[in-house]
Amino acid sequence: MSENWLPSLKTDTPQAGFELAVKLSRMAVKITQPSDEVRTRLRAAYEQDSEQLIATSHVVAVHFQTVAAANNWWR
Amino acid sequence: MSENWLPSLKTDTPQAGFELAVKLSRMAVKITQPSDEVRTRLRAAYEQDSEQLIATSHVVAVHFQTVAAANNWWR
Amino acid sequence: MSENWLPSLKTDTPQAGFELAVKLSRMAVKITQPSDEVRTRLRAAYEQDSEQLIATSHVVAVHFQTVAAANNWWR
Amino acid sequence: MSENWLPSLKTDTPQAGFELAVKLSRMAVKITQPSDEVRTRLRAAYEQDSEQLIATSHVVAVHFQTVAAANNWWR
Amino acid sequence: MSENWLPSLKTDTPQAGFELAVKLSRMAVKITQPSDEVRTRLRAAYEQDSEQLIATSHVVAVHFQTVAAANNWWR
Amino acid sequence: MSENWLPSLKTDTPQAGFELAVKLSRMAVKITQPSDEVRTRLRAAYEQDSEQLIATSHVVAVHFQTVAAANNWWR
Repeated sequence: MSENWLPSLKTDTPQAGFELAVKLSRMAVKITQPSDEVRTRLRAAYEQDSEQLIATSHVVAVHFQTVAAANNWWR
Repeated sequence: MSENWLPSLKTDTPQAGFELAVKLSRMAVKITQPSDEVRTRLRAAYEQDSEQLIATSHVVAVHFQTVAAANNWWR
Repeated sequence: MSENWLPSLKTDTPQAGFELAVKLSRMAVKITQPSDEVRTRLRAAYEQDSEQLIATSHVVAVHFQTVAAANNWWR
Repeated sequence: MSENWLPSLKTDTPQAGFELAVKLSRMAVKITQPSDEVRTRLRAAYEQDSEQLIATSHVVAVHFQTVAAANNWWR
Repeated sequence: MSENWLPSLKTDTPQAGFELAVKLSRMAVKITQPSDEVRTRLRAAYEQDSEQLIATSHVVAVHFQTVAAANNWWR
Repeated sequence: MSENWLPSLKTDTPQAGFELAVKLSRMAVKITQPSDEVRTRLRAAYEQDSEQLIATSHVVAVHFQTVAAANNWWR
């Protein structure tokens, strides 16, 4: 995790901000479970589970609040 | 997901903002589970499940905070 | 859902704002599950389930944050 | 629910604000489940269930954010 | 619960603010379940349950937002 | 827990802020369950459980909001 994966919260567009929010939600999982193999296996299960998809969407929503504020809501 | 589906967080009315919040909550699911077939199947189950409907409503509420702030609460 | 059900986030009192938050939490469910018949059936179950009542209260709390901010906390 | 139970979000102290947050979390439950008899029965169960106690504490935390902001954090 | 347990949201340091957030999360539980005996028994179970530990950490995070804002983020 | 583990919410970069958010989410668990032995055992289980990984990511997201605000979003 030594690479620089989050140079800024600024994005050119709301959509790019949303994609950054998705990335942030995944990075927290990656930091807790660094094994690509385990994450890939878990993903095969949870992407068929609506409860977990909704839970993932929730995390994205929280990060999107942060990214949107950082970009002054792209006003 | 190359299309431009989120050009702005600005909406003319609070109600349009609420509908955008619903869209945002669904897009995060779509990014995690891109298969229309799988999402349609999951939807048939969760739309009969009050726990998941409440969880979905929660995600919409978080996005609505963001959209409302972006629109200065349509004051 | 073509009716205008959310003309404004402004309310005269905190209590009216709280009631609007309850309405917002229900509208998101209604958008996801438009069938009155299904929602009525689900309601009969979840209103006897404390976990789901707490989850509903949580969604109301998130919307109340939004409505309260929109009204400058009725200061 | 015709009584005026929420005249203001202002409180004299942080502690009174916290108590108001507890009240708000309960009122949302009461609006969804108006029967005192049912709520009393549910309470007997969930007050012995740590998961639900934590979930309740979470709702209080969200409302406390709102009340604290309304009071400018009692600065 | 007549004692004055929350005189202020101001703390000297971020760490003291974090400890206050922990206290706030516990006080909401205590208000809902005032019995020390019951809470002690529940604690023995949930402190061995990672799901509930994460849920507790979540509540602390929400309160820490409030306390940090109250202290202008100790800038 | 007498050591000074949170001197400031300021970080030089967004990525360092994200790492601080991860630390905050873990410290709340540590305060509730101080035993390293128990936490290590629990970790072995939950890091294989996608639901708990998502829940952890959620807590990080809440703390990241706080840290990002404290740093004025590293603008």
